Formats: sequence, C-alpha cells, structure tokens
Amino acid sequence: MSAATHADMPDPTSTARTQQPVPIALGPNGDRLLSDAIGSGGATLTDLAVARALVWDGGTADFPVLPDHVRWVQLNSAGVEHWFATDVFQQNPHVVFTSAVGAFAASVAEHALMLLLAGVRQLPEHLRADSWRPAELAPRIGTLRDATVTILGAGGIGRALIPMLTPLGAHVIAVNRTGTPVPGAMETVAVAQVSEVWEHTDHLVIAAPATPATKHLVERSALAALKPHSWVVNVARGDLLDTDAAVDALRAGTIGGVGLDVTDPEPLPDGHPLWSLPNVIITPHDSNPPQRRVPAFAERVAANVARFVAGQELIGVIDTTRGY
Amino acid sequence: MSAATHADMPDPTSTARTQQPVPIALGPNGDRLLSDAIGSGGATLTDLAVARALVWDGGTADFPVLPDHVRWVQLNSAGVEHWFATDVFQQNPHVVFTSAVGAFAASVAEHALMLLLAGVRQLPEHLRADSWRPAELAPRIGTLRDATVTILGAGGIGRALIPMLTPLGAHVIAVNRTGTPVPGAMETVAVAQVSEVWEHTDHLVIAAPATPATKHLVERSALAALKPHSWVVNVARGDLLDTDAAVDALRAGTIGGVGLDVTDPEPLPDGHPLWSLPNVIITPHDSNPPQRRVPAFAERVAANVARFVAGQELIGVIDTTRGY
Repeated sequence: MSAATHADMPDPTSTARTQQPVPIALGPNGDRLLSDAIGSGGATLTDLAVARALVWDGGTADFPVLPDHVRWVQLNSAGVEHWFATDVFQQNPHVVFTSAVGAFAASVAEHALMLLLAGVRQLPEHLRADSWRPAELAPRIGTLRDATVTILGAGGIGRALIPMLTPLGAHVIAVNRTGTPVPGAMETVAVAQVSEVWEHTDHLVIAAPATPATKHLVERSALAALKPHSWVVNVARGDLLDTDAAVDALRAGTIGGVGLDVTDPEPLPDGHPLWSLPNVIITPHDSNPPQRRVPAFAERVAANVARFVAGQELIGVIDTTRGY
Repeated sequence: MSAATHADMPDPTSTARTQQPVPIALGPNGDRLLSDAIGSGGATLTDLAVARALVWDGGTADFPVLPDHVRWVQLNSAGVEHWFATDVFQQNPHVVFTSAVGAFAASVAEHALMLLLAGVRQLPEHLRADSWRPAELAPRIGTLRDATVTILGAGGIGRALIPMLTPLGAHVIAVNRTGTPVPGAMETVAVAQVSEVWEHTDHLVIAAPATPATKHLVERSALAALKPHSWVVNVARGDLLDTDAAVDALRAGTIGGVGLDVTDPEPLPDGHPLWSLPNVIITPHDSNPPQRRVPAFAERVAANVARFVAGQELIGVIDTTRGY
C-alpha cells in the first residue's frame, strides 16, 4: 500500500485536540475524494501499519494482510459474493467488514427505471425506425400507470426504486427475505412464496443480492407465468435470471422484453442471441458508472468514518455467515 | 351525426326522477367508453338535435352546426390551436368550449421522463452496440441526480412531470406565463424572462402550449446556452423548437441530444437529418397512444359531465381570446 500520505498525521505538539485522532488507511489507491471523505468523517488518513480501519477501494486480488489493530474494513462494492469466494473473512474473524450496499442505489435505481420505461414504451423499436410510423408503433406503447411492478430484493436499490415508481402510478410488490412490509410497497412477499407473485406481475425488476440461494430465482416457470407485455429488468447479478429461459421466452413472445445491466455469462459474449433479439436492452454493467461510483462511495465512506469515530453502528455490515 | 343511440333516453313515464336528466350528445362516433362516461357523469346520451352539450371526439373538419340550446362542447385534444384556425369559436360565441387539457398529461409526462432518462443515460448508443463495451459506454452515462431540469410550460404535463423528477434528485425550474410559483419546482420563471434560465439548465423539457407567441421559443441562442451534455425533450408541439438550430447544435455537439415526440415539420419526412443523427430519439407523436387516449378522455368526460350537471365550473375552459 502506497496510497496514504502523512500530510494529515496528527501534530504531536498540538494541544488543541482533546482526543487522539482515529487513524484510518486508504488503499490500494488514494483517490482525493476518498481521502477527503476520511477527513470529513473526522478521522486521520494514515498508513495501514498504524491504522485502526481500512477503506479498501480495490478488488480481492491485492487485499493486504491486516495488522491486529485493524478493527474495520470498508469494501467498495454493494455486492460482495466475490469476497466470499476468498478466505479474507476467515483470515480476519475479529474484523468488521462493511460493504457499500445502498451507496450506489440511487444511480442503479435510476438506471432500472430507465430500462423499464424504455422497454414498456417500446424504445428499441422506435430507435430502429427511420420513418414516421405512428400507426405501427403507437399501439405497442405501454405504461407503468396502474401496472404492477414486482421488485425482487428490497435492499438499497429496491428501496430507492419504489418512490421513483409511485408517482408514475405503478403498484409495487416487494419481495424480500422475510416478508416484512417494505415502506411504499402495495404488498411485500417473502422470497419463499415468490412463485405466488408472478401471475400478478406486469413487470419485474431484479434487484436482489446474489447468493447461492438466489441463482435462477427467476426461472423458466416464473417467466412462463408473466405476460406478453411483461418486461424483466435485471440490475443485480446476471445469474438471478435463467438466461436460456429468458431467450426462449423472448423468442416465443411470452414476455415483452428484457432490460439487462447484468448478464450470465458476463461479459455477454459476442454473438450471444441476446445481442440480436429485438426486445432486448443490454447495458454493460454500467448502471453505476465509474464517474458516479467514486463520488457515491466517498459519501458512504464519510458517513461510516463518522460513525466509526463516534463508536456508532456502521452502515452495511456484512454478515459473514449468510453470504451477503 | 349518427353516433348517439336512444337506448338511454329518459322514460317519460318514469316518476322516480326528481329532475329532468341533462341530455348530452356524443359525436362523431360513439365509443362505448365515452357513452358510458356521459352516463356515469350523471347525464343522458341523446341526439344533438335535443342536446344541451356535445362531447366531440373528432377533428375540426366535420364539426356540426350547433343548435341554440347547446351550451357546452367538450373537445378531445389538450392543444386546440387547430380549432383557433377555424371559425368554430366565432360561430358559437355563447358556447363554452373545453379542451382536454391535462387529461392526457400523465401518459405524456411518463413519455417525457422516458425520453429524458433514455437520453441522459445514452440508451441510443447502448442499443447500437452488439458487443460488451463498458469502457466506451459507461463514461458517457449521465444522471438526473442533482441535474437542473427546466420545464417549459407548467400546464397538466409539466405539473405531472415534476413529481416524477423529484424522487430522482433532479431540481426543476418551471417556466410559465406569469412566473407564479409552481408547486414542486425549485424556481418558477415567467416566460418573458426565459432567456435567463438556459445557462442554469442541464436538461430541457418542452411542455408548453403552442400559440403564435411560442413558435421557436427554444431558438438558436437558447440551444447555444445549453451544455454538451444537455438533452432537449419536446412533447408539446414541434414548432416550439427551432428544428434547424437543433440539427446544427447536434452536429456541432453543443448539446447532448434531443428526444422528440413532436417535430417541425410533422410528420418528419423520410431522409430528414434527425432520422440519422446519432443522439436523437424520435417517437411519432405517440406519447399519448390511442389505446391510452380514449380511457383518459373518458375520465375527463365523466368528470366534466358531472360538473356540468351540477352547475359547477368545468375543467379546461378555453379562453377563446388568448389562443389556448
């Protein structure tokens, strides 16, 4: 780690401070927005060698060995299944790890709304036209007004999406782990009963965390229970949707279309049928683009650093026994 | 007029009614949703020859000569400039005419939001891709979060759009005739001062009524004051935007793109540059598609019939001296 500078190290001659500042390291690189966030959260940027926490804006490959005095690590992604594929959590059983869950939710929710609206209003067909053809296009335009939109997953993205859908006159069914009512949803259903919601669903947004238990949560029978006008949007992880079943449903016309920011496999290989089917919108996992990622992550870092300094509960603590 | 049936004519032998039912005619055709709306509003469907009001679901060409006892005509469009091009208002100076202003606002506002989001998030470029290219596409993705969206016109469409934009974190500047503050807008500006808003505008939605005074309201200098990321959406009337200036701005890259549900000329002729420029979304005036139009118009008819029967103020009374 070469990121931290000593510019903000406490001055040992200062008498103005009543408490020792909290030393927090930043790695593997030192984006200015993130170092500023550590400062604005009330901590002091330092080397990992003397740090009590680490803000890790990197992947799994170069994750460092943590000194004993590190008590908290802030990871930079909302989904952390790739971290469960390593032994980082087992190697550091006394460390609290936080994901950035929810930090990017607003951008991803906005993207999900865009994919859903563009699908329901047949934008792909419109963009292929090079002539004024209302008689052909207008009859196929749908609306979210009075439509039932099922959101799988009521985490940060789902909870950000609900108030975006409500003013459009959509009715939201939220699906979460426990069935505990989600604010703003017309109805909340526990994932164990998810098969009951498909027939009441006009459109589906997949925004659930990826765990081994959620692979192909939207399986062939789910797609079969949807409607010829139904759009399926996935902004979570590709394998929550059975891709082959989706391709078959698109070809058969039993669903209206799919809007995918994530795919399985990902990256979606050249020549895959999804690239050429007409009612498909693919965005290459850019719902939370880099230029939005760091500002949003920095906001979360500042918030969690402030909580760490104050000894408060952190946002996004990973339950290392559950998988998300 | 051959539309009305006599099925619902009052039974002269009935003693159950305490008042004479109000006879209202429907023309030129008799869509069942509209005849039902007249009934649910508390009136009785009748022939024009004996009617006190007319619900006119047609254009200007075959508008009938009105008998003297007709006191109100409900027209079926939100914009009525084509009616001002006729002498219908002058021929019937004692008749109250209502437009359907606002009745289709929800669908048009949803469409405007779709065009804006699809533009800001670069959906046209994404849909042209047939390969997974996040490095190329992601940096160009914008957001409505913290963006300033100027809405020209705070009629039904504008007022329906504001609460759709607010949950996305956009700041709205509303432009209306008088500058009277519009609920939900961060700021409201009178149209006479509209030139002051361009430099503060990230994105522009044109939703103003078309009058002789609003032609080219968005002129070359307005487009020049916008930003390279700015999208301009028009869901009102084509000539509110200077089309040639928009084409030039798109070619020069001084604006981000345009999303047009209305064009000038309209229909947009084959081979027009707007069909082939990359950052253009054209929808052929189908923001309020036929399958949405009649249900929405029927809701307005029912509401206004109820007001007419009760002697209350009607929604959408046309000021025949002002042009909208």
